[in-house]
Amino acid sequence: MIVSATFAVQSKGFADVIDITDKVELEVAASRVRGGLVTVFVKGSTASVSTMEYEPGLVADLQRTIEKLIPSNIPYNHDIRWGDGNGFSHIRATVMGPSLTIPFENGRLSLGTWQQIILVDFDNRPRRRDVLVQILGE
Amino acid sequence: MIVSATFAVQSKGFADVIDITDKVELEVAASRVRGGLVTVFVKGSTASVSTMEYEPGLVADLQRTIEKLIPSNIPYNHDIRWGDGNGFSHIRATVMGPSLTIPFENGRLSLGTWQQIILVDFDNRPRRRDVLVQILGE
Amino acid sequence: MIVSATFAVQSKGFADVIDITDKVELEVAASRVRGGLVTVFVKGSTASVSTMEYEPGLVADLQRTIEKLIPSNIPYNHDIRWGDGNGFSHIRATVMGPSLTIPFENGRLSLGTWQQIILVDFDNRPRRRDVLVQILGE
Repeated sequence: MIVSATFAVQSKGFADVIDITDKVELEVAASRVRGGLVTVFVKGSTASVSTMEYEPGLVADLQRTIEKLIPSNIPYNHDIRWGDGNGFSHIRATVMGPSLTIPFENGRLSLGTWQQIILVDFDNRPRRRDVLVQILGE
Repeated sequence: MIVSATFAVQSKGFADVIDITDKVELEVAASRVRGGLVTVFVKGSTASVSTMEYEPGLVADLQRTIEKLIPSNIPYNHDIRWGDGNGFSHIRATVMGPSLTIPFENGRLSLGTWQQIILVDFDNRPRRRDVLVQILGE
Repeated sequence: MIVSATFAVQSKGFADVIDITDKVELEVAASRVRGGLVTVFVKGSTASVSTMEYEPGLVADLQRTIEKLIPSNIPYNHDIRWGDGNGFSHIRATVMGPSLTIPFENGRLSLGTWQQIILVDFDNRPRRRDVLVQILGE
């Protein structure tokens, strides 16, 4: 059995970190699939998905770490060519990746106690993001 | 056909790198599924899975690289708020990600000759980790 | 329904970034599966797959960022032990990961408008890479 769903998320951009666990869980529950795999995929080349303990301290730590590793205030060839000003957003998204696959059982995601699913929007402006959820199971 | 399995791994924490290829292969063999996909997912917000050539030189190189990129000896907001002392562990796990999907054929993982599946435990203490294996195929 | 396919890609190594979107799309079309998930997996321990807007500016930005984060010109234990000279290639591949899962619908990948699938070959020499494509759906 395969069920596809899409939901939208409004972000502020600039490494905005959004907890999307509830939205993914709702789609899994609505699918009536009992056990299997759910793949979460964000469309676009300037956002990523991963998991983390979603609390304000770690959100700030993640944003500061990413800023240090892939700075927003240095020149990028992408910006010289296209003038978008979001070269840093693209590189961050490519390194962290756009997709994540999580097992579920009895209609519930098999996450750790302190493990939430996050979308990180690296773009340099607010964005409405389409998140695709693909549920495979029985 | 879908088969779910879980196995436990004992780690020492502090970026302990553990080769879990044999355990994943055993689950694939036990499932009797001939070909398809196996998803490996580590529960918890301070560990990751990936692949590497598992040899002591590269294990040391990986640990040193991660320590340089996301240091353990700088302040993290997570630690100021919660006193866990493992803010660095969380950020490392979020950047590297908790899941991995690998094709298999004739009951054998389609890995490269020098490519093993690893669990990296970033926490700041020994942990018993649950690794979920979801096998989809026919 | 599950369909497996493999295609080969010739790379120049040294963080060569190759757009493999067309090759993945061809396999999805040839499979006759209408909707589901496609997993892209690169065999070997010195290459990765991800997505990006594939244009020369961002390719250069990605290469420069990776060189800064995981330099090729510092000593690696792997090289001292084995003399391969590609310790940096291994560590880069482990951090970025070997696999990616993407939904598709009506035979077309659900990518963003500016989002392509890339293979990054981190090895220190030209390589012929096997990319595995596993298509699950109905």
